[in-house]
Amino acid sequence: MYPESIQNLVECFCSFPGIGEKTAERMAFSILNFDEDKINLLEESLKEAKEKIHPCQDCQTLTDKEKCDICSDDTRDSNTLCVVEDSKIVFLFEKLGIYKGYYHVIQGLISPLDDINPEDIGLEKLLDRIKEKDYKEIILAIKPSLEGEITSLYIKKILEGMNVKVTKLASGVPIGADMEYMDNLTLSRALEDRKELS
Amino acid sequence: MYPESIQNLVECFCSFPGIGEKTAERMAFSILNFDEDKINLLEESLKEAKEKIHPCQDCQTLTDKEKCDICSDDTRDSNTLCVVEDSKIVFLFEKLGIYKGYYHVIQGLISPLDDINPEDIGLEKLLDRIKEKDYKEIILAIKPSLEGEITSLYIKKILEGMNVKVTKLASGVPIGADMEYMDNLTLSRALEDRKELS
Repeated sequence: MYPESIQNLVECFCSFPGIGEKTAERMAFSILNFDEDKINLLEESLKEAKEKIHPCQDCQTLTDKEKCDICSDDTRDSNTLCVVEDSKIVFLFEKLGIYKGYYHVIQGLISPLDDINPEDIGLEKLLDRIKEKDYKEIILAIKPSLEGEITSLYIKKILEGMNVKVTKLASGVPIGADMEYMDNLTLSRALEDRKELS
Repeated sequence: MYPESIQNLVECFCSFPGIGEKTAERMAFSILNFDEDKINLLEESLKEAKEKIHPCQDCQTLTDKEKCDICSDDTRDSNTLCVVEDSKIVFLFEKLGIYKGYYHVIQGLISPLDDINPEDIGLEKLLDRIKEKDYKEIILAIKPSLEGEITSLYIKKILEGMNVKVTKLASGVPIGADMEYMDNLTLSRALEDRKELS
């Protein structure tokens, strides 16, 4: 019913995460108001992203180089390695700007229910890297879900006997959140992990 | 900080209506999981939408033909013309499937505050068309905002003396909406326009 190219755009946009039909329609129509340059940039970037972006050979963060900017940066703190489940988290942390060590991206989380086992998420590569470099601390920045906890415990286990501290992010009530809307698990965890005011 | 093509994608996606930075980032990363065919379809549709889509010569609905499918369809009800402020509304109504007449898209709404005057929204084209064809009813499917009301009243006025009925969509409480969340204007209108149960 829409002209074909609009219909195709709507369908393409619908397959992005978090984009429903209404938003996809608004997006498709807004294309008509974009100037030529922006359309070209968008087309070009789509092509390039697909062609050039791949995991860094060392840390698996998505990059358009062989070795990503972070792994290539010798001035960073070589004592800490932050393990994340997705490249996006690396960029998120870099935006924060407070972490100065290196990263390692594993390929998702162990999930027995979905038949995702430890060997499926690239842990050998992580282990090799930790053996090779002399990190003092491995920070597990993995989400506090069931799968996240299993994965964290598994990594902790395979690192046993190595002279390295393994830490994980604090769980608790997010800053500014309404207590009444927090789920019970988060509240219980926040209570257990309570800190003394100093 | 992101690889350049990812950064460009994020910026492009951010300029779509309703897309914030977080969503744009998710979208940009999801491109990497699209298969080659989908990327090509997206690129192709972007190019085509920009090149081929333009207003129908008769009704101004966006189309990839000279005359849109609706204007080309002789089987529709030639007694009614539905005036809308945007092509999107045409497609919305067509999805509903209950209106069988023709459409005319005006170029926005009269807004004295934004210096948009009657001559800026293509009303002569509408008037010419109404004079030429012998419509029995003009339905103003224009949003019930201040600008919408001004535009409706203006169209009503320039059609005075012509033998045509001018109607507009009913205003009121949307089906399923919570009364308590309705604004006062909507509630007042709904009360004024109350209908006897039959």
